[in-house]
Amino acid sequence: MYIHQVAAYLPAAVVTNEHFTRLNGLSHEWIIERTGIRERRKAAPGENTNTMAVEATTRVLAAATDLAATDIDLIVGGTYTPHDTIFTMAHAVQHAVGVTDIPVVSVSSACSSLLNAIEIVEGYFALGKARNALVVVSEHNTAYNNEGDTVAGHLWGDGAAALLITKERLAPTDLRMVDLLTGGAAPVGKANTAVTLKPVERGIVMPFGKDVFIHACQYMARVTKEILERNQLGVDDVTYLIPHQANLRITKNVVQQLGLPEERAVSNIDYLGNTGCAGAAIGLADTWHQLQPGNHVVITVFGGGYSYGAMLLER
Amino acid sequence: MYIHQVAAYLPAAVVTNEHFTRLNGLSHEWIIERTGIRERRKAAPGENTNTMAVEATTRVLAAATDLAATDIDLIVGGTYTPHDTIFTMAHAVQHAVGVTDIPVVSVSSACSSLLNAIEIVEGYFALGKARNALVVVSEHNTAYNNEGDTVAGHLWGDGAAALLITKERLAPTDLRMVDLLTGGAAPVGKANTAVTLKPVERGIVMPFGKDVFIHACQYMARVTKEILERNQLGVDDVTYLIPHQANLRITKNVVQQLGLPEERAVSNIDYLGNTGCAGAAIGLADTWHQLQPGNHVVITVFGGGYSYGAMLLER
Repeated sequence: MYIHQVAAYLPAAVVTNEHFTRLNGLSHEWIIERTGIRERRKAAPGENTNTMAVEATTRVLAAATDLAATDIDLIVGGTYTPHDTIFTMAHAVQHAVGVTDIPVVSVSSACSSLLNAIEIVEGYFALGKARNALVVVSEHNTAYNNEGDTVAGHLWGDGAAALLITKERLAPTDLRMVDLLTGGAAPVGKANTAVTLKPVERGIVMPFGKDVFIHACQYMARVTKEILERNQLGVDDVTYLIPHQANLRITKNVVQQLGLPEERAVSNIDYLGNTGCAGAAIGLADTWHQLQPGNHVVITVFGGGYSYGAMLLER
Repeated sequence: MYIHQVAAYLPAAVVTNEHFTRLNGLSHEWIIERTGIRERRKAAPGENTNTMAVEATTRVLAAATDLAATDIDLIVGGTYTPHDTIFTMAHAVQHAVGVTDIPVVSVSSACSSLLNAIEIVEGYFALGKARNALVVVSEHNTAYNNEGDTVAGHLWGDGAAALLITKERLAPTDLRMVDLLTGGAAPVGKANTAVTLKPVERGIVMPFGKDVFIHACQYMARVTKEILERNQLGVDDVTYLIPHQANLRITKNVVQQLGLPEERAVSNIDYLGNTGCAGAAIGLADTWHQLQPGNHVVITVFGGGYSYGAMLLER
């Protein structure tokens, strides 16, 4: 299977660190040092997870000259910040695309949902039940975030991305999916309490950020090594590593563990913050035009719950 | 693939129609006539989607003498009433089961999630990435329901069910999954507004119940016919039809369209109300011990969004 196209959508409004200085007394330098975040985007009133997903979809379809909307035969959405859990994000995208009677489902494995969604697509392709899938990841973190939370309120940003994934190669620029693995690690550490989003009780909270940090570093490094090893590749073969965009210090820790030069790690956290399961997909969209034939990309993710995964791509 | 075991969990507290008579002036007779609902269950304080899912899991594992918890290599959860969208229901189940490093994901296609979850399992089996899956469906409708809503407040109940699904037959009582199909129909009718659950804005609302009713009747009858026809079976071959438990009038309409005797339709709506994506799975648990070798069961679902599906099983 192949990633034929990818496109991101970012809301226009920018929230700088000064906002959190005014609100919570956190200095720009303090936030930068601990997270690498300079600013993040915020969805406008009227925007939400579903509208951002539709915007990203419109863009990916406009970019895909070899595939029409009517060719799409599967839609999988990923989000942990749902606008609507009944008319779900995937349904909103289907509504916009206008193709009916195809499998449509929205999923969450927190910040790992991108890879779970793509693994679900892989399964539909293996069954012969789909050939041209649309995967959309979208997070409206600011809808659930408590800005006054001095622990984690400044981390989150909004954004979305859409990927067209095809069973057959359609264009020379398509990325071949060489391998993909996902895993849940809910019995590990403080997975059940470290970061949660209980829509009825309250929004996103991260009482045990250190536990998340430690396991994110461990799992993203471990699973990257695993996917490289089982495909007889070394770290030197990785043109770009796209980790989940949670914290610049996590990214630096992961590349250090791997022995990968820092410039090979794709990062958008400085201007987007943590955009949840959309972050790595937005990173892929940013990297798309720089990739040369033969280049390898590893996307590795870690999310609350806990969940993790890695995907190896080749142009 | 096979359904090896199924078990339900229902919270203890019963809410009778008299509650809605006192609250909203709706008589028992009026509710019965329009919905078939006599009473529904309500999760206790401290219970939620995740705890009910864990209870159902404990029960299905206790019933499965041929499969241990440690054999489980995939967990898929289904709910539109999430307790936590980060430590999701599937993660809570994994946490309880204690098996790590297996794929874990929660999904929503509203009341259709059971069949989407099973189709995802089908894909993992086809990929060779899993052999023994746990599918858990759980709805905490009362957490998101507005009881004072005279249109739909009296419809919803809480409940959960868990299914063990295996690639190989483990026991003579296993149900073989002959066929399965799912579809989204978001471009159809008032799919985007008829029934929604926006966690931030408000809970479950159903401003266009008639549109839901019409499409539920159409799709569940159509997709049942389709799955029978493409497997060279007739309506007479169906021992039990288990439709999504939304409304007794929908069930009656569907069996009438199909020409199926009413007693072949499994129904729990009279004592459970609409338990969302758990309803049909609870129905299967209720029917489990009545099934004889050679019997066929069709589960057909319809949910907000819109989504639909059908699954053909054989003992």
